[in-house]
Order: sequence, then C-alpha cells, then structure tokens
Amino acid sequence: MATINENYNKLQGGYLFGEIARRTKNFIEKNPGMEVMRLGVGDTTRPLTPTIIRGLQKGVKRLANVKTYIGYQDAEGKEGNIRLLNAFIGFYKTKSINLKAKEIFINDGAKTDLANIQSIFGLDNIVAIADPVYPAYLDSTVIAGRTGKFIDGKYQDLVYMECNEKNGFIPDPPKQKVDIIYLCNPNNPTGAVATKKQLKAFVDYALKNKAVIIFDAAYVEYISDKSFPKSIYEIKKAKKCAIEINSFSKWSGFTGVRLGWTVVPMDLVIEGTKKGKINSLWSRRQGTMFNGACNIAQEGALAALSTAGQKESKKILIAYYMNNAAIIKKGLSKLGFKVFGGEHAPYVWVKTPSNLSSWEFFNKLLEEAHVVVTPGSGFGAQGEGYVRFSAFGDARNVKKAMKSIQKNLKL
Amino acid sequence: MATINENYNKLQGGYLFGEIARRTKNFIEKNPGMEVMRLGVGDTTRPLTPTIIRGLQKGVKRLANVKTYIGYQDAEGKEGNIRLLNAFIGFYKTKSINLKAKEIFINDGAKTDLANIQSIFGLDNIVAIADPVYPAYLDSTVIAGRTGKFIDGKYQDLVYMECNEKNGFIPDPPKQKVDIIYLCNPNNPTGAVATKKQLKAFVDYALKNKAVIIFDAAYVEYISDKSFPKSIYEIKKAKKCAIEINSFSKWSGFTGVRLGWTVVPMDLVIEGTKKGKINSLWSRRQGTMFNGACNIAQEGALAALSTAGQKESKKILIAYYMNNAAIIKKGLSKLGFKVFGGEHAPYVWVKTPSNLSSWEFFNKLLEEAHVVVTPGSGFGAQGEGYVRFSAFGDARNVKKAMKSIQKNLKL
Repeated sequence: MATINENYNKLQGGYLFGEIARRTKNFIEKNPGMEVMRLGVGDTTRPLTPTIIRGLQKGVKRLANVKTYIGYQDAEGKEGNIRLLNAFIGFYKTKSINLKAKEIFINDGAKTDLANIQSIFGLDNIVAIADPVYPAYLDSTVIAGRTGKFIDGKYQDLVYMECNEKNGFIPDPPKQKVDIIYLCNPNNPTGAVATKKQLKAFVDYALKNKAVIIFDAAYVEYISDKSFPKSIYEIKKAKKCAIEINSFSKWSGFTGVRLGWTVVPMDLVIEGTKKGKINSLWSRRQGTMFNGACNIAQEGALAALSTAGQKESKKILIAYYMNNAAIIKKGLSKLGFKVFGGEHAPYVWVKTPSNLSSWEFFNKLLEEAHVVVTPGSGFGAQGEGYVRFSAFGDARNVKKAMKSIQKNLKL
Repeated sequence: MATINENYNKLQGGYLFGEIARRTKNFIEKNPGMEVMRLGVGDTTRPLTPTIIRGLQKGVKRLANVKTYIGYQDAEGKEGNIRLLNAFIGFYKTKSINLKAKEIFINDGAKTDLANIQSIFGLDNIVAIADPVYPAYLDSTVIAGRTGKFIDGKYQDLVYMECNEKNGFIPDPPKQKVDIIYLCNPNNPTGAVATKKQLKAFVDYALKNKAVIIFDAAYVEYISDKSFPKSIYEIKKAKKCAIEINSFSKWSGFTGVRLGWTVVPMDLVIEGTKKGKINSLWSRRQGTMFNGACNIAQEGALAALSTAGQKESKKILIAYYMNNAAIIKKGLSKLGFKVFGGEHAPYVWVKTPSNLSSWEFFNKLLEEAHVVVTPGSGFGAQGEGYVRFSAFGDARNVKKAMKSIQKNLKL
C-alpha cells in the first residue's frame, strides 16, 4: 500500500503567496470594479530589455535551423552550455572571483536548486534559517524531514536565526552547532544587507563547525554601495564552506523566463570526503534528476551577462524598481511609519501601527486602501508585527497606492 | 558537521550517457579526423517545426511589451498557464479522457517530475521498475533511499520487473506487493509497446494492492497503431491509481526547450487520505520547490498542441525519425542481427552477436564501425546482451552508420 510523505502534514498553512492571492481574489469578488494596487508578491512587471530580447530571439532562431539546432546539453553528467558557463566565469572575474566551468551549474532559477540542494546532504543534518526569511528554505526543509515536529510555534529540530530591529535584521551565526545554514542576502523580506564583517562571521562559523552555507544571492545586483559584498566568495575561504545560488529573475526580469545558476566550488570539502566530492554529488544529482534549463532562456542569459545587457538591467530595470522603493519609503515615512530596507533591495519592511498583527494590517491595507502587501509573519515568527512592501510594480501603481494609503487608511 | 546523503554512494557507475560520452570522446581524441556516427543518446536533432517556431517567437515578443509581459504564473499554489492547461484538456479530450485544469501540472520536461514525484510518497514505499528501462527512475529511487544496498547485482529492496524476449519485453505486474510502479510505455530502450490488456493488468494490480503507477508516456506519440493506448487513462479506473508524466521532448523536438506535463487525477486516492489529497501534495511540492516552466517554452507548447502543430510534429519529425528506425531495422536484419522495437518507438533493440556483452559490442561498434550506440546493460541487468540504436539523428548519418557496419564490422 502506497503511503504519503507525512512531513507534508507538518507544513504550516498554505504557501504564503497562495494565501495572499486567495484573500485578494475574495476581496475583488466582493468589491467588483474596485482597483487593487498589488505590492505583495515580488514579481517583476517591466518588459525585458532590448539586448535580452535579441538574445532570446537568437535562441529561437537557432532552433529553426538544422545546423544550429541543439537538444540536450552535453551529457557528461553535467548539464551546461559552455558559452554561458564562460560568461559566468567572466561575470565573477569582475568581482575578482575565479571559478572553473565545472563549478557552475546552470539551473532554471534559484528556487529549485535552493530546495533540491538538500538532496546531497544527510537527513540528520541540522538546518539553520533566518527568521524572517523567504519561506521556500523552511518549507523544503520540512518536506525533506529535517525539522522535527511543530510545537509552540517552532519546529523542534530547526535553528532559527533571529532578525530584528536590534541587530538591524542581520542575524548572528547560531550559538549552537548546525550543519547547514541558509543565508539570503540582501534579505527577503527585510531588505537588510550584510557587511563584509557580518558575512565573515558566518564563514568563520561554518569553517569552525564544519557547516555548509547555502547562500541565496538573488538580490545582490540591487546592492547600491560597493562596500557590501555581492558574492559570498568575496569573503576569504568561503569557497571551502559555501554554495552560492543566484538567478536572473529579479534583476533581469526572468521570473517567467526561468534561468539561474548554482556554484559548488571544488574546494568545498566536508570532513571524511575528498576534494571535489560535494561538487560531484551535485553534478550527479542534476545529471540524474534534471535535464538542463531551456536553451532559449540560456541565450537570454548570455545577453543579460553581456556589457550592454548588464548596463540595461541596471539602468532600465533595477533603477526603475529602486525608484519605486524610494517612493514607498518616503511615502510611508511621511505618514509616520517605521520603515526599513529599500536601499539595497527592492523590498521595504514596515512596522505595523498600533501593535496590529501582520495579517490584521494586511487586511486593513486591503480593505481600506485596496493595497496588497505581504504579511511579515508569513516569513517567520520574528516577522510578526511587520509587513513587506514590494517595489516590483508599475510606478504609477506604486504612487496610487501611496496616495490611497495617505487618503483612505484610518490611522 | 555537515554530512553527505550516503545513498549517492550506492549508485552504480556514472550516469549512463555520461559514460558513453566519455568513451566516445576518448575514441575521437585517439582517432583525430575520424567520422563518428552517433546513434547513442536519444537526443532530437531536427529543427523545430514552423508553427512551434512562431509560437516561441510570440512568447519572446510578449516579454518585450509591458502590456503582455508576464513574470511568475498565477501564484495560487499551482504553477500554470491557463491557456496551456486548456490546450492540454483539449488534447486529452481527443483521446476521450476528461481532465480538470487542476489535475494538470506544467513542468520543464518529464525527467524532473519522474524523479521528484517520489517526494510526496513515504520513504518506506517499495518501488518496482522494469528491467531494462530508462535509468532515471532507478537512480532517483536510489538517491531517495528506497532501494537498500546493492548486493550481487541487485538492490535488495527494489522489485525488478523483467522484460525479455519471452514476454516480448513487456513485463508482468510484480508477484509480490509493491507500492509504487514505474512504467515506461512505449519502453525506452526496447521500443516495446503494451496492449490495452497488458496495461489493464497493471491497473488491476495497482487497485488490488493500493499501489500507485507512475506512467512515463514520453514516447506515446510514436505509437503508429491505434489499438495501443496512448495514455494510461484509456484504461478504466486508471485515474484511481495512476500519475501520467509526459513531455514534448521527443515528438516535438523540445529536448533543449524543456516543457512537459504531469497529470495527478483528483480521483487518485491512497488509503487513509481524502479525495484530492495526492493532487494537493504535488501542488504543494511544486508550489514550494518549483517556479514554473519557461513561459516562452509554454508558448511553444501551445503551438505544438494546435492542430497545425500536431500535424507538423507528426509529418516532419515523427515520420523522419521513424524512417530512420526503419533503415536501422532493415539494415541490421539483413546482416542477420536479431532486432526488436522500432515500430512504435524511435529505438531499435538489438541482440549482440556471438554472446558479446553489451559494452563489448559497444566498443566493437565504436572501434570498427565508428558507430555509437547505447549498451543495453546500462538500462538494467536484463539489458545485458543487447544494445539500443537510437533513431534520433540525421538520415544520411543513419545510412552511413548502416553502411559502415556492413562494411567494417568484423562479424
């Protein structure tokens, strides 16, 4: 008799963004014709840049001709497109980081690999995650069976790294021993970004405790101040303990195109294994359970990594969304809200007024101002009492939302 | 201290196609300038059809305009594009199968879901696979930890369903109780296709033993005789016990574009769970660990499912590859080889001469005739003594390969 993976029953509530979509839909059905301003999900809304569009068109064109048609990537146990891998090598070189082609794995966006990377580690490994943080790490850890039971608002075997006003929403490394640490930097949802010193503390911790850092770098291109690291490998010895996962989703508008990459350095060694073993495990995992990312999307990525592509993403997309972030920050500050983030990340983290809970404030914003945000509690217990405003959206829409809050919210 | 998933160490050898690529590369390096005819990997080689190219172009164009740009799919816990889901519903309707949109999950090709579907089942579930068969089922079952140790050429906890000349390479349902059954029909590598009666035996078994069938339908469009089922759901009550996974890879040339689909019927119920639970588990898994398939590829899929698209795939692609299969079958039969398959699938399954092992015959074909095939033993113990010729390739190349075998192979 087939049975189910009971770990799914330990998951708390639906996937956060599903719940938001449901409540929004309900509101719209009850208020037909009402304009709703969505600043909830972190979904890109601007069209792709001209250079990327040309890259994608080239990708399609190649498939129309027998001479340039390609099917599977090279099947040497490692999925990949050597031109794109070389472009990644060049991209990292500009950050003074040297990588080999076999250390880079092309994926279909960060989320899948952030979840699937757990496949190569032992089931008894203790996982630490920031609180609050992007919920996919937690939920995939629950599904894998590494969290224990959920009692009194906490998973018993999970280590939570608290992010709060006091530590500027950047957590300290855990006090106890853990084996796997998820870091999201700049942080989603708080928009906080770690200094070199703060990241070094994690690398030191990992080396001392023989832990592995899973570094989610999806927002690094939003960092506007060069003194903050844009890759975990800017920290000395990080290659010995960190896997970096990144994506074109947020900075090049690839949330629907789906293309990202994962770096598993050859130097990343776990005690009792040989050099390169972790890299080869991931290679085996991907060779067995993944058939490569869409080759049209790969051409788009190649274009995004070109000089023109990077410049356009910066000037056309990042600048646009960060202008939205500034409007949100300014608008809410003026009304007396306590706001954080929004300088090195497209998210503004806002303290709820009058000690409202996150979902209470979510409902209030939706019902009174018709603005959709994300309740902070959906990102972890420490997110309670906050909501996240996403800067992804149409600038006019963002301005309308700020006006509506100013005019309609009963404070 | 982080540790590795020790199940990886139970895997036997490298991933099959990686090993073939390595041996081929070695041969070419030792014989510079020598022309090698590749009939190994089942990789499509023909360009995409005009209708599909137009669909993909449209997909790119939509992303260039703010009005038509789309990022993430709807975020209601279920990734999907409603237009494409409706096209799938129509596609199944032509086979007299009624599906609801929420029963269909768009994926990035069959392989990922065939492996990841295991996530929703208990770790103690006993898995049955055909022998020989496409190696991804076995390897992902090993990685998940469901096979036990590898002793005397067999995984102790895995149930092998033997395919041999005697049963026409279509296995009988297991004699013992199992919980999950992988079926690949038409079978890769043997090219054998099951009758309605043979599939019904599996459905009956699954219902009786409360097992779940994972039905890999990647090659069904190659079935040339209408009396053979093209979907497991053509068998009565199959919706109560079967998940069907399919892809555009082989019949529409999407091996590099990456697009497929998984059907998890609402009626599929496991004892002790409510109706729709299995569907919701998979929805939760995908919502948490997958961010949807490339939306350009989805436009290509929409085009592939249109009347013109289906017609072109049939006339331009399937007919081309099946012509290759016929050339291989005829050529090898003439030389006295015992050949199977190649009528409802783009694979020809060939008995090795003089009791050579699969890898011995692989090496002989490579070194003497410069033809790359796939050793049958790579698909399971029962594949020993056979090799697979793939019909995916240029027709001139296939003809050259046949000529070279005729001329150069020392029999």
